[in-house]
Amino acid sequence: MLLAHGGGGEETSTLIREVFQKHFSNDALNALEDAAVLPWSADRIAFTTDSFTVDPPFFRGGDIGKLAVAGTVNDLCVMGAKPRFLSAGFIIEEGFHVKALESIVRSMAQEASLSALTVATGDTKVMPRGDLKGIVINTAGVGELVCDGLSASAVAPGDTIIVSGTVGDHGACILASREGIDFQLDLESDCASLWPLVANVLDAGARVHAMRDPTRGGLAALLNEWARQSGVEIEVAEEAVPVHDAVRGACELLGIEPTHLASEGRLVLAVHAADAEAALEALQSQSAGAGSCIIGTVLASGRPRVVLRSPYNTRRIMDPPSGEILPRIC
Amino acid sequence: MLLAHGGGGEETSTLIREVFQKHFSNDALNALEDAAVLPWSADRIAFTTDSFTVDPPFFRGGDIGKLAVAGTVNDLCVMGAKPRFLSAGFIIEEGFHVKALESIVRSMAQEASLSALTVATGDTKVMPRGDLKGIVINTAGVGELVCDGLSASAVAPGDTIIVSGTVGDHGACILASREGIDFQLDLESDCASLWPLVANVLDAGARVHAMRDPTRGGLAALLNEWARQSGVEIEVAEEAVPVHDAVRGACELLGIEPTHLASEGRLVLAVHAADAEAALEALQSQSAGAGSCIIGTVLASGRPRVVLRSPYNTRRIMDPPSGEILPRIC
Repeated sequence: MLLAHGGGGEETSTLIREVFQKHFSNDALNALEDAAVLPWSADRIAFTTDSFTVDPPFFRGGDIGKLAVAGTVNDLCVMGAKPRFLSAGFIIEEGFHVKALESIVRSMAQEASLSALTVATGDTKVMPRGDLKGIVINTAGVGELVCDGLSASAVAPGDTIIVSGTVGDHGACILASREGIDFQLDLESDCASLWPLVANVLDAGARVHAMRDPTRGGLAALLNEWARQSGVEIEVAEEAVPVHDAVRGACELLGIEPTHLASEGRLVLAVHAADAEAALEALQSQSAGAGSCIIGTVLASGRPRVVLRSPYNTRRIMDPPSGEILPRIC
Repeated sequence: MLLAHGGGGEETSTLIREVFQKHFSNDALNALEDAAVLPWSADRIAFTTDSFTVDPPFFRGGDIGKLAVAGTVNDLCVMGAKPRFLSAGFIIEEGFHVKALESIVRSMAQEASLSALTVATGDTKVMPRGDLKGIVINTAGVGELVCDGLSASAVAPGDTIIVSGTVGDHGACILASREGIDFQLDLESDCASLWPLVANVLDAGARVHAMRDPTRGGLAALLNEWARQSGVEIEVAEEAVPVHDAVRGACELLGIEPTHLASEGRLVLAVHAADAEAALEALQSQSAGAGSCIIGTVLASGRPRVVLRSPYNTRRIMDPPSGEILPRIC
């Protein structure tokens, strides 16, 4: 990349045509106006944004492009919104290879297609060497709310807590590649778009009270947020939390908790107990949710906190992580 | 800023509460869910994004926060869309002062209020020292299309070209502060939200064919894009293009064209000739458009290009700028 690629002139036009339009092509984007006019009207609109700084930008199981689409798709769908349109803002270091950028853009297009999502508008800035290391991608997304009332404040006593698969795979994968740990097993980032899984659960009619993907801060941060915002005590069965052997190994080596590590393609749900089996079935019917299981319950009474129950029936507090375990993990 | 402020844990929550909610407070944002549910339904939706990397982040006439709001507001309103909701993604260098961030956020809130705009959702990442210098802000915006058909492809033979004030003030201001040039005159960035001005022109019923703010690449890039996309020849009267004396001086010193420098609060319009006076009147009735004037016309026939006519009636091509005049100018 040259600085000129972000200058708004001829070089920017070439980049737009040969990289972005090549992979994202759609009427809204191709108009190349200052704003895209969406072929869409909606009564209930959800809106979200996230910036992705992951380093390295290419990792086992994905790259920053896949992550940037999946991350924003997931923020929409955990609120019960069907993802519809995405914006993409690229901030790139001078000298970054155009081929690497194209590979990232190709990933984005592929990931977007999984949710029938249109990348409608974008922007590129190139920063001088020394001002930015690598690439940062911001995505904002708009979606149509199809399910009302999902909220971190809506978790209710008696709810069942379900997770759609192993936790911490993404975090462990990035951590390992940064620390130079070579996994014997094929540990990959779990990075994935959750819309197909979410749509299945909603279609099954299960009374879901809250959904969330455990990104920064991991499962521990997520459950603590639910406990605080809903004013409930959540009890998690320690041995029920699915953790990949390789992730457990890396965590022991590095002295960190798997429940503090980010997942980028897992769904955590608080579901009315009577509908827990139906939700579980809907999740498990897709390969992305094959590893779904119940990990805990919301107690009938208690203090706003998360408690981990060991196989020996002892109970300890599951604190949210404090500080930054590792920068640029997502 | 600490890395932990971007970690998604307790420190991030504190930052959200004490800086972002303090200034942006609104129901959609305050819910603090993964996506905001907008109190809005619309039939025709415009969507845009832009990242802002301006360095220095504080400059005469504004800061990166004001710019990040105005820039996205302007991208929406030049398409005939009333700006409604904004997302804000902050990417910040570790060690950046929280007070400086708060000052930027306060600017954003003030600028948003000028267009009755709601900052509905946001995200913060903190990057280690050495990975990012300073601060980058991405904003994406959604708006309601209130005027159809505005397009860089809709400029028609006979149209009158109008600009709402002096060109290049923002670019010259940033350039001067980076090169250490001290202006005798009070040159400021023109950074401003154009919605009030645009609303006035549309309300006046003038048949506007295209509008654009001349950001990266300046007036020259904008007019060349119109000429190419609409397949028309645009003739500009050289002496009619308003340029601040201080900008002209700086350009002569640095050997660059004022028409290549970015403005961040000017409007360029292609208007049906019969409505040019009405549009001009609507613009001049507001202080932000007091300096509006006619700078050229679209020829009845000709090649897709921009021609500059001198006071001596000689004609020369006005080329778009090539390359990057200065990185991190917006």
